[in-house]
Amino acid sequence: MNQSFDIAVVGATGTVGEILVQILEERDFPVANLHLLASSESAGSSVPFRGKNVRVREVDEFDFSKAKLVFFAAGPAVTLSFAAKARAAGCSVIDLSGALPADQAPQIVPESNGHLLAGLAQPFQISSPSPSATALAVVLAPLRQLLDLQRVTVTACLAVSAQGREAVSELARQTTSLLNMHPLETRFFDRQMAFNLLAQVGKPDEQGHVPLEKRLVTELREVLGMPGLKVSVTCIQAPVFFGDSYSVSLQLAAPVDLQAVNAALEAGEGIEWVEADDYPTAVGDAVGQDVVYVGRVRHGVDDSSELNLWLASDNVRKGAALNAVQLAELLIKDPL
Amino acid sequence: MNQSFDIAVVGATGTVGEILVQILEERDFPVANLHLLASSESAGSSVPFRGKNVRVREVDEFDFSKAKLVFFAAGPAVTLSFAAKARAAGCSVIDLSGALPADQAPQIVPESNGHLLAGLAQPFQISSPSPSATALAVVLAPLRQLLDLQRVTVTACLAVSAQGREAVSELARQTTSLLNMHPLETRFFDRQMAFNLLAQVGKPDEQGHVPLEKRLVTELREVLGMPGLKVSVTCIQAPVFFGDSYSVSLQLAAPVDLQAVNAALEAGEGIEWVEADDYPTAVGDAVGQDVVYVGRVRHGVDDSSELNLWLASDNVRKGAALNAVQLAELLIKDPL
Ligand SMILES: NC(=O)c1ccc[n+]([C@@H]2O[C@H](COP(=O)([O-])OP(=O)(O)OC[C@H]3O[C@@H](n4cnc5c(N)ncnc54)[C@H](OP(=O)(O)O)[C@@H]3O)[C@@H](O)[C@H]2O)c1
Ligand SMILES: NC(=O)c1ccc[n+]([C@@H]2O[C@H](COP(=O)([O-])OP(=O)(O)OC[C@H]3O[C@@H](n4cnc5c(N)ncnc54)[C@H](OP(=O)(O)O)[C@@H]3O)[C@@H](O)[C@H]2O)c1
Repeated sequence: MNQSFDIAVVGATGTVGEILVQILEERDFPVANLHLLASSESAGSSVPFRGKNVRVREVDEFDFSKAKLVFFAAGPAVTLSFAAKARAAGCSVIDLSGALPADQAPQIVPESNGHLLAGLAQPFQISSPSPSATALAVVLAPLRQLLDLQRVTVTACLAVSAQGREAVSELARQTTSLLNMHPLETRFFDRQMAFNLLAQVGKPDEQGHVPLEKRLVTELREVLGMPGLKVSVTCIQAPVFFGDSYSVSLQLAAPVDLQAVNAALEAGEGIEWVEADDYPTAVGDAVGQDVVYVGRVRHGVDDSSELNLWLASDNVRKGAALNAVQLAELLIKDPL
Repeated sequence: MNQSFDIAVVGATGTVGEILVQILEERDFPVANLHLLASSESAGSSVPFRGKNVRVREVDEFDFSKAKLVFFAAGPAVTLSFAAKARAAGCSVIDLSGALPADQAPQIVPESNGHLLAGLAQPFQISSPSPSATALAVVLAPLRQLLDLQRVTVTACLAVSAQGREAVSELARQTTSLLNMHPLETRFFDRQMAFNLLAQVGKPDEQGHVPLEKRLVTELREVLGMPGLKVSVTCIQAPVFFGDSYSVSLQLAAPVDLQAVNAALEAGEGIEWVEADDYPTAVGDAVGQDVVYVGRVRHGVDDSSELNLWLASDNVRKGAALNAVQLAELLIKDPL
C-alpha cells in the first residue's frame, strides 16, 4: 500500500490520545499529515511523532475537511459536538468515547466482528467499544463455536487510568500521603482509593447500574453477535494505575472439555494464553502489550458446565488506542 | 452469669490472635486465667489484656488441662498437632485454621447455623469458617427464605492480611519502594503486589482450584445448610491491607422484589445495609467493625431473576476473631 492519509486525533494530550499517537508510529500507519487536537488548555503544547514535535491545536478551530479520518478520544461531549461536523466534511470517524448510538456507529473489535466493516458506507463511522467489552470479546470470540454459552458473569477490576490523568495522579498522591502518615485528603475520588477497592465506577442510575456496566452488556452482545447472551456485570475500581483485570465465570449448556478450550484460546487471535502453573497480572504482563492475557482456565469446583477465566488487558492499548488503530488499518484496506 | 473460664489462645501474637485477645476484653468475656501461646519465636514477649501484660508462652509446653477452652489461631499444622491433645485434656476447641474435618468440627456462623451448637457433645470442637464463607453466610442467611437461590457467583477480593503479618509488611515495603522509583524486589509474594491484583491466593491443585476456593464452596453450603447450592468462586489478592470485598451475583429461580430484599438485609443480624445512593468499602467502612456491610443491591442490567451485591467485611474480626468469640459466647451459655 503506497497511499497515505491525513489523520486527526481529538484528545491527543490525554491518556488514550498520547498512546494512540505512539501506536500510529509503532505500527507505521500510513500517516500523511497528523493533526493533533485538544481543548484550549493544551493548545500550543506539542506531542512527539516520528522524531518531530507536532503542535497541538484547539479542536474548535479545526477544519475537518483537512483529514480523511479522525479519532475521537476526548470524552463523549466532544464526540457529540464534532463527529457530525467531521462526517459532513467527508471525514471518517472512529469514536473511543462511547457517545454514538449503535445504529450510527457499530461497535467493532477486529478479532470478533471485523467482518462488519465491509458492509459500511463512507465516510465511515465506527465505535471502539469500552475496554471491558473489548477484552472480553477478544477472549470469548474463539470460544463461541466451541461452547453453548448461557451466561457470562464478570467482575471487572478497572485501573484508575480508566478515568483519565487526574485519577492516576490522585492514586499516587493518596498513596504517598497515607504512607507518610498524613491524613487522607480526597480530590478526584470521593473517598480513599489507595489500598482500597471501590464498588462502582461512575454514577449509578435509578436501578443501581452505572453507565460502564450497561455499556458492557450491550457492547459485548453486539460485538460477539449474540443478542440473547445473559451478562451479569459489576465494574469495580482497583488501586492499580494501568491494566484491567477480569474475573469471569461462564455457564454452559453442557460440560466442557478444558483441553479444547485451552487449545482454542492458545490459537486465538490477539490472546496470550497462560498455562495453569502460572497466571497473568495486569501490571506484570498486560501493560504495554497488545494482547489480552488469559489464565486460570478451569471448571467450577464441582461443576464441569462452568468455565472460569482470569483476564488481564491494557485498558489504554487494546482497550482503546490499539483497537481503534486496528480498525483504521482495516478501513484503509478499502480507500477511505 | 457469674462463672468465668480459663481460656487459651494459640497464635496470640499473630494478626488474628492479637485481635481475638482484644475482642475478649472488649466484649467482657468471662475470662478467669488467660493463657497466651505461640511458637518459641515470641515466647517471652507479652500482650496487653485488661490493663496488664500477659506473658506469651510456648504452645509445646502448655498443659491443656489448665484451660476450659482453647482458640487455635496459628495455622493448620499447629491445630493438627495440638487439638486432639487439648480435647483429651477436657478442653473445648474453637479452630480458626480450617484444619479440622467437618464431621469432627462443624463450621458455624452464629447468624446462620448457630442452632447446631445445641446438638454437640462436650468437650466441644467447632470451626470458625474462612472469612469469605463467614461474610457470605451472614448476608445470605436472611435471604434464604425469601429467594429460591440457584447459584452464587462470587469474586472474593482478599486483603493481604489474609496471609498474615509478613504479607502486610510486604505490601507496605513494595509500595514505598515503587513510589521511590526503586526497582521491585519481591519477598513474600512472588511478583508485584503493590498497585496490582493477583489472580489467585495460594497454590492451585491439578484442577486449578486453590484451597481457599474449595473451602469457600464447602463451608458456605454447610453454614447455610444448603448442600446442593451451586457456588462459582474466584479468590483474588488485592493490594489492600485489611478488609475483604466481595462482588456477588445470585441467580434465582424467579424474579425477585428488591424492596423485600433490602428490608430483609436491613433487618438481618450482623449486617449493615447501605442504601443505593452510597456503597460500602473495606477500608472506609468494614475495617474495625463487627458487621458485614452490604451495598449495591440491584437486579441484573436486564434480568430481574438476578441479584447483585457488594460486601465488605473485616477479615480479621468477623472473618475470624469475632466469629470465634461469638461461638465461645454461645458455648458458655451451657457449661463448657
Ligand atoms: N483511559 C482509558 O482507559 C480509556 C479507555 C477507553 C476509552 N476511553 C475514553 O477515551 C476518552 C478519553 O479518555 P482519557 O482517559 O484519555 O482522558 P484524559 O486522560 O482525561 O484526557 C482527555 C483528553 O481530552 C481532551 N479534552 C478534554 N476536554 C476537551 C474539549 N472540550 N475539547 C477538546 N478536547 C478536550 C483533553 O485535552 P486537554 O489536554 O486540552 O485537557 C485530553 O487530551 C474518554 O471518552 C474515555 O471514556 C478511555
Ligand atoms: N489473617 C486472616 O485474615 C485470617 C482469617 C481467618 C483465619 N485465619 C487463619 O488464622 C491462622 C493465623 O493466621 P494469622 O493471619 O493470624 O497469621 P500470622 O499473623 O502470621 O500469625 C501466626 C501466629 O501463629 C503463631 N505460630 C506460627 N507457627 C507456630 C507454631 N509452630 N507453634 C505455635 N504458634 C505458631 C505465630 O507465633 P510467633 O509469633 O511465635 O511466630 C503467630 O502468633 C491461620 O490458620 C489463618 O489461615 C486468618
